[in-house]
Amino acid sequence: MSLKKNKKIAENMNEVDDEIMNVLNSEEYLNFSTKEEAEFIAEFTEVKKVEKGTLLLKEGKLATTWYYVYKGCIREYCLKDGEEITTEFYTAGDSLSDDTSKFSKSPSLLNWECVVDSIVSVVPFEVQLEMFKRFPRLERLCRIETEKKLGDFKVAVNNYNSSSPVERYDNLLKTRPEIFELVPLYHIASYLGVKPESLSRIRNRIRNAYR
Amino acid sequence: MSLKKNKKIAENMNEVDDEIMNVLNSEEYLNFSTKEEAEFIAEFTEVKKVEKGTLLLKEGKLATTWYYVYKGCIREYCLKDGEEITTEFYTAGDSLSDDTSKFSKSPSLLNWECVVDSIVSVVPFEVQLEMFKRFPRLERLCRIETEKKLGDFKVAVNNYNSSSPVERYDNLLKTRPEIFELVPLYHIASYLGVKPESLSRIRNRIRNAYR
Repeated sequence: MSLKKNKKIAENMNEVDDEIMNVLNSEEYLNFSTKEEAEFIAEFTEVKKVEKGTLLLKEGKLATTWYYVYKGCIREYCLKDGEEITTEFYTAGDSLSDDTSKFSKSPSLLNWECVVDSIVSVVPFEVQLEMFKRFPRLERLCRIETEKKLGDFKVAVNNYNSSSPVERYDNLLKTRPEIFELVPLYHIASYLGVKPESLSRIRNRIRNAYR
Repeated sequence: MSLKKNKKIAENMNEVDDEIMNVLNSEEYLNFSTKEEAEFIAEFTEVKKVEKGTLLLKEGKLATTWYYVYKGCIREYCLKDGEEITTEFYTAGDSLSDDTSKFSKSPSLLNWECVVDSIVSVVPFEVQLEMFKRFPRLERLCRIETEKKLGDFKVAVNNYNSSSPVERYDNLLKTRPEIFELVPLYHIASYLGVKPESLSRIRNRIRNAYR
C-alpha cells in the first residue's frame, strides 16, 4: 500500500516547534516503541497542535483517523433535538477512535471539539492497519488497551447510572480534577446530566458544607 | 506453559450430548477457525450447558474466564445499596469478559447470572493468552471485535442517556426483541432504569395506542 508520509517529521524538522519537540522527546513518546516501530511512526504519523474550537470529527462525516492526546482537552458531544449533549472528555493519555463509523463505514454520530489548544498524535486508519500488519506487538498493545477501555467504560457507566447528580459531581472531582481546570462548567453540567443552574446549586451546597 | 485439556472433547466424545453436538457442528463454530486453530480450541476450551440460576461470575471474585454465548441469556447486574441493578443482557453471539478485573487483578464488581438454561464456550484467560501467542489471526479478530464492541457500547450508552424510559423501551423492543422472550419483566424494568409498575404502565399505554 502507499501511505502518505509525514512531511514535517521526515523532511523538515525546522518547522516543528518547541512544544511539539517536547512531546517527541518525552519518555512517553520515546519509550512506547522499538527503533523500527518508532521509524514507521515518525514517517507516517504526525504530532500536531490543534486550536481551541477545532472539530476533529463532525457528526455526519466518516471517521478516518485515530487520535492520541498529549496535551489539552477534547470534548465529545452528540446532538439530541438540536441540543449538544456532552458525553466524554479526553485529556492527556487518552485516545479517540470512532470504531462504529470505522467498521460500519457509516457517518459518525459524534463531534470531537478541542475545548482548549491541544497537542495530539494523528494516525489515519490506513496507517494504523499497516502498522499492525508490520508490528504485531503494537496490535497486541492496542488489543489490550481497547479491552481495558471497554472494561473501564462499563464500570464508569454503571457508576454513572446508579449515582445521583451530587455523587456524579463528587466522583468526577475526585477522579478527574483536571477537567475542572480545562472545561467550562456548562459542558460539565451537560456531562453530569443536569442543568447549569443545578450544577451551581450542587457546588454551592458542597462549598457551604465545608465552611 | 501447561494448559488444562478439555477432557470431554479430547477423551470422551460420548459424554457430549445432542445440543452440544449441534453447536460443535454449527457453521458458526466450524467456520470461525482454521484447522490448527480448531484443534487448539477443541483441546483447551469447552462448550458447556449452564443451568438457569447459575452464576458465571460473582461480585468480589477475580474474573478468570471469557465466555461466548451460543444459546440462552446471561444477565449482568451490580449491587447498589443491596439492590440488584441490571446493566446488560448477553444472548446468542455475545461474549462476556470482565477486562477490568482481568487486567487490574481486582475483585469483580459484576454478577453474571444465567436467566434461562444456556450453552456457552468457556475460555480461561490463560488459554486465551496462549491462543493469541500461537495464532495472531485470532488476536486480530479479538482486537477488531473489542473495538466494535466499544464503539457500539458508546452509541448504546449515548442513546440510553438521551432517551426517555418510553423511548428506551421502544428501542429495546425494536433492536433486541428476543430479550422479552427470555427475561422476566422486572429485570427489564431495572435495565431500563424504571420501577416494574412504570414499565407496566408504559406497556399498557403502548398497547392501548395500537388498539
